[in-house]
Amino acid sequence: MAIPETLRWDGDSLALIDQTRLPAELCWVTCTTPEETAEAIRAMVVRGAPAIGVAAAWGMALAAREAVALPRDAALERLRAAASTLAAARPTAVNLAWALATVLAQAEASPGDGAALATVVTREARRLHDADVATNQAIGRAGLAVMPEGAKVLTHCNAGALATAGYGTAVGVLRAAHEAGRRLHVWVDETRPYWQGARLTAWELVQLGIPATLVTDGMAAHFMARGAVDRVVVGADRIAANGDTANKIGTYGLAVLAAAHGIPFYVAAPCSTFDLTMPTGADIPIEERPAEELTHVWGRRLAAEGVGVANPGFDVTPARLIAGIITEAGVLEAPFEPALQAALAATNRSYSAT
Amino acid sequence: MAIPETLRWDGDSLALIDQTRLPAELCWVTCTTPEETAEAIRAMVVRGAPAIGVAAAWGMALAAREAVALPRDAALERLRAAASTLAAARPTAVNLAWALATVLAQAEASPGDGAALATVVTREARRLHDADVATNQAIGRAGLAVMPEGAKVLTHCNAGALATAGYGTAVGVLRAAHEAGRRLHVWVDETRPYWQGARLTAWELVQLGIPATLVTDGMAAHFMARGAVDRVVVGADRIAANGDTANKIGTYGLAVLAAAHGIPFYVAAPCSTFDLTMPTGADIPIEERPAEELTHVWGRRLAAEGVGVANPGFDVTPARLIAGIITEAGVLEAPFEPALQAALAATNRSYSAT
Repeated sequence: MAIPETLRWDGDSLALIDQTRLPAELCWVTCTTPEETAEAIRAMVVRGAPAIGVAAAWGMALAAREAVALPRDAALERLRAAASTLAAARPTAVNLAWALATVLAQAEASPGDGAALATVVTREARRLHDADVATNQAIGRAGLAVMPEGAKVLTHCNAGALATAGYGTAVGVLRAAHEAGRRLHVWVDETRPYWQGARLTAWELVQLGIPATLVTDGMAAHFMARGAVDRVVVGADRIAANGDTANKIGTYGLAVLAAAHGIPFYVAAPCSTFDLTMPTGADIPIEERPAEELTHVWGRRLAAEGVGVANPGFDVTPARLIAGIITEAGVLEAPFEPALQAALAATNRSYSAT
Repeated sequence: MAIPETLRWDGDSLALIDQTRLPAELCWVTCTTPEETAEAIRAMVVRGAPAIGVAAAWGMALAAREAVALPRDAALERLRAAASTLAAARPTAVNLAWALATVLAQAEASPGDGAALATVVTREARRLHDADVATNQAIGRAGLAVMPEGAKVLTHCNAGALATAGYGTAVGVLRAAHEAGRRLHVWVDETRPYWQGARLTAWELVQLGIPATLVTDGMAAHFMARGAVDRVVVGADRIAANGDTANKIGTYGLAVLAAAHGIPFYVAAPCSTFDLTMPTGADIPIEERPAEELTHVWGRRLAAEGVGVANPGFDVTPARLIAGIITEAGVLEAPFEPALQAALAATNRSYSAT
């Protein structure tokens, strides 16, 4: 079975795979307004930095539909309000803000009334959607350089097709190596508290036919010490100018463990994840998520009553622990600051040319 | 509310808190035969290295009751068979084998028929039970040296009252510091896949009034990097002659992370956890537990179908990562080999003298 499309534009609505219900059920949520789209992002119906960027772009297309009969200024106002609502849905991944800014800039730079803007915005959302898939395929090709025959790879969270418009970033790297005929073994961290590994990455790897073993997050070090892991690859939600990388909580610990075992640690992410306005990772906002994600499973309390709970959704891995950042512009290595600038300049050039 | 007794001898049966149902329900399982006791250990109704040692000793008392009318040789045979059944219940914790050998040696060294042996075995089980509580209190007192006012302590799994006949080992150290009036903050790893932290340690700390925050296992490094953790203390299931320590899966990774952040990592365990027949941790048997502990929660499938699963119940932390082993004979430091030998000799002497 092929992996179905994470996001599907139906001409007047956006259909999202409900990732909160996978793998038990494969069903879709339909968004017809930017507010519904923001809510779907907030509720993690759709998650993963590239996917929420593309979802937000389609949310702008829904806003533009609502503004189709309005004069230009009112239509732009509606678009800006929608962008603001969508941007507030989740704080850590920069792709969300990036996609919204891209769509809004395109609208502002284009002439015409609400009807004309709706055409522009919808076309731009489609372009971001298709570009994301193409970007991920390019990341996969670039990753072949660090994913040899027989690689024993550990991954965390889900940076797969479900986290993107398609193909995946970290899972895209595994997928490209698999499609190139290389035998891999993948260790999948279950990724508490939201189980993206157990629910989503494991599901994708089974569909793709890539051999995979599910482990708890606390088992990674044990298998590293036994020589059963020889590289780690994860996605990213935001990469600061110096290469510091925010990703799902648990990533930083894995990077420290990888370094202690002499195992290279890779980040796979599109250049849209770079945030060069942040000098280091210290300023990246870290989302605090609901305590219930730790204390309850399926609405039923599991943890003891009365205990405090911390639930940061992300952590920051310092650049010094990262062997390479696998992007559509190739595998970037330290020093990351000039490498990121050059990659972003190159992709912006090629992006403008398309 | 005080923490109720983990194990209670009722004169003709052994009552165990059913730890599989905590914290939602506090209820007891009654064992009337050594086979039922072995099954309770296997099913983790009772768990924790010291607790399963004491439970096994009471299992021997149940066997001795069954043999009360038998002549000496037949009674001893029944005891040896029971010891064999109980020893097979779980492989990693050495306390189980240690307690069984202690009880059996006492029976073999005592004169008389089944009735006489029943008296001896029951008295020996009571002695091991009471000695475990006293040992843990001594561990707590010894731990005061490394648990200062304001300590920010991370613990993993449950090495509390529930893991022992009472008071706890790692939690006993926290408890002794709390009782000495020191303010602590405890980070509780939820401890996947069996949730001993979320279910049991969090429950104990709430009862004890010790401020505690529940985190997922993957969050430890994040809080270490932020300076929110300044020591780690865990229990042990078996400690090899060189100090290598088997404990709940996830412990080794924590020790590596602690070292990387300059945070001292302590093991709290009675000398009965030492296994000087094992030169290093490499030979400690690691229990592989059922895949369902990862794939299902409350009997309902959570992980994707078709994915492989690994579920080692324990890992081994090398001695070089351990700042100290907190025992009833004091805090042992490297070089561990002579320190463990001396501590064991000292406790055996005091043990024989009681």
